[in-house]
Amino acid sequence: MPGNSFGNLFKITTFGESHGPALGVVIDGCPPNIILNEADIQYELDKRKPGQSEVTTQRREEDSAHILSGVFQGKTTGTPIAILIYNKDADSSKYEPIKDIFRPGHADFTFFKKYGIRDYKGGGRSSARETAARVAAGAVAKKILEKEDIRITAYTKQVGKIKAENVNLNEIEKNPIRCPDKAAAKKIEKFILNMAKKGNSVGGMVECIITNAPAGLGEPVFDKLDADLSKAVMSIGATKGIEFGSGFDVIKKKGSENNDEMYIKNNKYAFKSNNAGGILGGISTGQNILFRVAIKPTPSIKKEQITVTEDKKEVFVNIEGRHDPCICPRIIPVIEAMTAIVLVDHLMRFKAQCK
Amino acid sequence: MPGNSFGNLFKITTFGESHGPALGVVIDGCPPNIILNEADIQYELDKRKPGQSEVTTQRREEDSAHILSGVFQGKTTGTPIAILIYNKDADSSKYEPIKDIFRPGHADFTFFKKYGIRDYKGGGRSSARETAARVAAGAVAKKILEKEDIRITAYTKQVGKIKAENVNLNEIEKNPIRCPDKAAAKKIEKFILNMAKKGNSVGGMVECIITNAPAGLGEPVFDKLDADLSKAVMSIGATKGIEFGSGFDVIKKKGSENNDEMYIKNNKYAFKSNNAGGILGGISTGQNILFRVAIKPTPSIKKEQITVTEDKKEVFVNIEGRHDPCICPRIIPVIEAMTAIVLVDHLMRFKAQCK
Amino acid sequence: MPGNSFGNLFKITTFGESHGPALGVVIDGCPPNIILNEADIQYELDKRKPGQSEVTTQRREEDSAHILSGVFQGKTTGTPIAILIYNKDADSSKYEPIKDIFRPGHADFTFFKKYGIRDYKGGGRSSARETAARVAAGAVAKKILEKEDIRITAYTKQVGKIKAENVNLNEIEKNPIRCPDKAAAKKIEKFILNMAKKGNSVGGMVECIITNAPAGLGEPVFDKLDADLSKAVMSIGATKGIEFGSGFDVIKKKGSENNDEMYIKNNKYAFKSNNAGGILGGISTGQNILFRVAIKPTPSIKKEQITVTEDKKEVFVNIEGRHDPCICPRIIPVIEAMTAIVLVDHLMRFKAQCK
Amino acid sequence: MPGNSFGNLFKITTFGESHGPALGVVIDGCPPNIILNEADIQYELDKRKPGQSEVTTQRREEDSAHILSGVFQGKTTGTPIAILIYNKDADSSKYEPIKDIFRPGHADFTFFKKYGIRDYKGGGRSSARETAARVAAGAVAKKILEKEDIRITAYTKQVGKIKAENVNLNEIEKNPIRCPDKAAAKKIEKFILNMAKKGNSVGGMVECIITNAPAGLGEPVFDKLDADLSKAVMSIGATKGIEFGSGFDVIKKKGSENNDEMYIKNNKYAFKSNNAGGILGGISTGQNILFRVAIKPTPSIKKEQITVTEDKKEVFVNIEGRHDPCICPRIIPVIEAMTAIVLVDHLMRFKAQCK
Repeated sequence: MPGNSFGNLFKITTFGESHGPALGVVIDGCPPNIILNEADIQYELDKRKPGQSEVTTQRREEDSAHILSGVFQGKTTGTPIAILIYNKDADSSKYEPIKDIFRPGHADFTFFKKYGIRDYKGGGRSSARETAARVAAGAVAKKILEKEDIRITAYTKQVGKIKAENVNLNEIEKNPIRCPDKAAAKKIEKFILNMAKKGNSVGGMVECIITNAPAGLGEPVFDKLDADLSKAVMSIGATKGIEFGSGFDVIKKKGSENNDEMYIKNNKYAFKSNNAGGILGGISTGQNILFRVAIKPTPSIKKEQITVTEDKKEVFVNIEGRHDPCICPRIIPVIEAMTAIVLVDHLMRFKAQCK
Repeated sequence: MPGNSFGNLFKITTFGESHGPALGVVIDGCPPNIILNEADIQYELDKRKPGQSEVTTQRREEDSAHILSGVFQGKTTGTPIAILIYNKDADSSKYEPIKDIFRPGHADFTFFKKYGIRDYKGGGRSSARETAARVAAGAVAKKILEKEDIRITAYTKQVGKIKAENVNLNEIEKNPIRCPDKAAAKKIEKFILNMAKKGNSVGGMVECIITNAPAGLGEPVFDKLDADLSKAVMSIGATKGIEFGSGFDVIKKKGSENNDEMYIKNNKYAFKSNNAGGILGGISTGQNILFRVAIKPTPSIKKEQITVTEDKKEVFVNIEGRHDPCICPRIIPVIEAMTAIVLVDHLMRFKAQCK
Repeated sequence: MPGNSFGNLFKITTFGESHGPALGVVIDGCPPNIILNEADIQYELDKRKPGQSEVTTQRREEDSAHILSGVFQGKTTGTPIAILIYNKDADSSKYEPIKDIFRPGHADFTFFKKYGIRDYKGGGRSSARETAARVAAGAVAKKILEKEDIRITAYTKQVGKIKAENVNLNEIEKNPIRCPDKAAAKKIEKFILNMAKKGNSVGGMVECIITNAPAGLGEPVFDKLDADLSKAVMSIGATKGIEFGSGFDVIKKKGSENNDEMYIKNNKYAFKSNNAGGILGGISTGQNILFRVAIKPTPSIKKEQITVTEDKKEVFVNIEGRHDPCICPRIIPVIEAMTAIVLVDHLMRFKAQCK
Repeated sequence: MPGNSFGNLFKITTFGESHGPALGVVIDGCPPNIILNEADIQYELDKRKPGQSEVTTQRREEDSAHILSGVFQGKTTGTPIAILIYNKDADSSKYEPIKDIFRPGHADFTFFKKYGIRDYKGGGRSSARETAARVAAGAVAKKILEKEDIRITAYTKQVGKIKAENVNLNEIEKNPIRCPDKAAAKKIEKFILNMAKKGNSVGGMVECIITNAPAGLGEPVFDKLDADLSKAVMSIGATKGIEFGSGFDVIKKKGSENNDEMYIKNNKYAFKSNNAGGILGGISTGQNILFRVAIKPTPSIKKEQITVTEDKKEVFVNIEGRHDPCICPRIIPVIEAMTAIVLVDHLMRFKAQCK
């Protein structure tokens, strides 16, 4: 199967290049009779859109969502929902001088090697702009999760050495870093702006919590919930690692430390800890699901780097253009979107087989 | 789709419970005319089989591979290859006393919540024994990779605080830890045996290197090579995290440090570093592909733990049985197998669309 | 999986309602470097578009194809190709009076029972207008087949009792019936117009020939070439049957009559007959592939029919609107399109596994 | 995707060659807690097994079903159900003399062209024996349909010119032809035996009725219920055509004759006729679903035929071996099985999205 579809029962197919006429997504399998309008989608797109603050790219895209199908008189009909987002502020002129050059840290080289042709304008299909379509689809998924009271919250946990220590989820949307720790947010903002001034960029870590997901989601042995979340998240550009619960800390743990003991609380099954991150044997336990994602520093930097051309010449390149100095704030809605899509898909799979 | 198939063009479907009559796998889509016999499969199964050394479970399974179809006169025919592995040393008696109990750190609880029924004998389908079928399929995938000179090597990189510092790939199969650092291997072995004596278990980290994979593998935007490898590896029980190249270290890196600059060497494209782990934009670069996996400590420990029963009573449980005190040595062939399957699948996908 | 995608390696996903803003298709997996422009697609769309002649609906849609992605500087890039066709002449007023009525022979009732909601305007997603998206995708598939010299030709073989006896493929596009027999075409035209005048409609049969397909296409045991063609064709509205080669005539045949004997001609394998229709064991033989399709009479007729409303009242209905009195002429490009998509998909599958 | 899996949520993967050690199937996605044992499967296998009567092959296979996984204490667990059927009476000696010969009407030639290698013993994977695995899977599907009171009944409708006129479903299992008309059954039996005596074979037609299927099954626009049933049935060897409801008779019908008018009966929606065969717009109406299948005469005949060898020599061949002179009686359980699998799959898909 080609690689631009994701999901099984709630299935999305995305398309579009950074500087083409439009990006879009087709959502197939959405349950009928879900109340949905363009504002629902716009709300999520606005969290991802460029130009939100000083720490994000200054490209000015309104990223308006246009629903082309699958919604009738304000409700989903069960037929495919196509959503279009037009590209408006594409400025291809900056890409002409580097059209034969493979930018370091970018997919220019690999697209060229794979397809033998590449749309060099704005990175074409490999642009992070592609994720707008994911966010649009995620907005629909979130509408479905809302009915089940399932909530997904991602936030910037760390940038450089600065870590959110006091996590307060209400703080997230109050600062441009989307950091749940007010003090850390300020430090991070300062750090990022300082880097940007130097033409450089920085990496970071995003944490994601899912609350109220029922026990039973996940399809062993291959489509385990953590496996599918890993694929979903690692398919987003710039992600370099993912871990669940205790994650890489398990390396140093003993079984007696890492097992989550169970007990009975108010006549319900309960766990004394959550080292597993809410998933056992690839199936949700009913606890919070928790994972963390490593985000690489933006590869586009205003610094001289050595690289090569298609015809094998070595050249210096200095990436002009409008780029985020840190990817964390704007990747958060994308991580939430992909997570939402995985959850809806697994809710439907669970229902199909086991309910 | 249900969750027991993996891969698109090279597709495996596994089945079987730990204490049922047999485990097995059906491989569909294998290219015809590949030389294949049961010894090829046995070679890999022997690396995973129990009872290899003091640091592994003492269950005695010969894990013999039986090819039922798809091979004719020593060659694959292009039709599905079914491989069967009989269970012989299953001892269900140890599971009778705990048949109503949810073992901490195990999938007993989640299988019960999902399916409303579970095969409690040896963990049923959730047993790590399930991975034998993956290894058998991986052996076939490796035969195909061999023809392209692509090689996958996984090894124990760290257990507890003990890390392999001097990596010598020739050392791996010379010690029961499968550690490429002879000195570290000895320390780790001692550490594990000490833990085992106390009835406890330990976590660790496995590193995997793929050499000689061509540029061009991976299918953006969702079936990126790192996304598919992540899913493949995170679908193996006991894995809690995965990272590529610099991995979680990118959190603290600047763009200027993390980008891999390119140059020309012997008239070929080359990279000055490999922070990306051999994958850019989800497509292989032609460099080594490198990832690391966090492995949790075995949940089955001979220590008193509190847990609950199906009918909501709190009880103490002490897991008898024959369990690996550290999962690393025997998960290595499984990680290699899943990696091999992903690579063959992507080689075929690349060929189908772009060659 | 939801039902709006078709194909495996060459995969299309369609969307859109008859009276919504637009119809469209996303083609994923198209090989890169295929020369493609909107005129290629328009050429095929024009064969399906309404208002071509007196025997077709008078709805006036120009059905312009807009490529939104996947094509760069006149060539496919290997990324998804999205094509949009705007609805312009939708006249929903005729549907208001029948919005609670289930039209006989239409999908109104079944969409209502399935989804609990339906877009009644122009039949919504169940409209034959949906097939425009298939034709657009088929145009891309045909570009790929062209390179291999594979040609698909469908035509009206029979309407009512009038049959094409002298098949001359050059005649097909010279008459509005798309009938390869000039004399039969005239008779059929007269017959259809007479029926239309009476407010009635007529059924017919379409025959399809594929020339120059190589031997080896088809994936036993389930994705046989005839099985996949059957699904492709039977997924088009109004088709009620399909047969290959001798088809239903085999009922009365003996083995000695039906087997196609082989011989050697110019040092090549050859067949003495083609009762099989070019497919043996689900795999193409290299002969012409031949199948026939039964097309039901248009259900929308200007005659009083009894039917029911959503709230279970019996009513008379007389379908006004602009409908084809015979579906054959305009279903031909749709059958060709679906056939082309199946062939490209199987060419790629064959290449992936066996080349 | 390779071609040996079928279904989406209820998904089967089959394997095995005619003269290999065993045939088998893995059923993935089966709902848990279905009561199932080997006798349920044996019951269906016995209807397909060879040697039932004089009109079937004399190969003696007991075709015993062995469940290897997915069933625990008499109930399905939701994990994959693997079923094995050993080959016991394989007699490969008859195939040695023709191992380089392409038998007319068989898949020998196409398998050779596709894979470049073929298992010539008993036809290998292209043998009709492959369908035993489908029947085993269908038996599980039927257990699920039983709970919903959905019933599938297929029977021989016609052989040569002899047609069942008085259809009495209770007659079917009372004669070796599986014909619902006692008188016709006798004539057909005589006709077939006469043909067999001459070393020849005959074609026929099978009709299939599904009763009590709910309205709402089928996934437009590609996975329509009739499209999926067509693929399912046309994937069975020897089928050359399928038609639903009025089928090919629609060619001569007017819209006013073919539309099924609706009315209200006992406060329920009802239809005055069933020309549609129980499916409108690809979705079940709640009426009986009805289709007919054309079955070719067995290609293996004891008559001299001309054919060719791999190395391009023309030779005469006379097929010895044990073959059914008419395929109808033993293909009936296979058609029922494939139909059952499609229905269960669509019931689950309907439930996942719309319930």
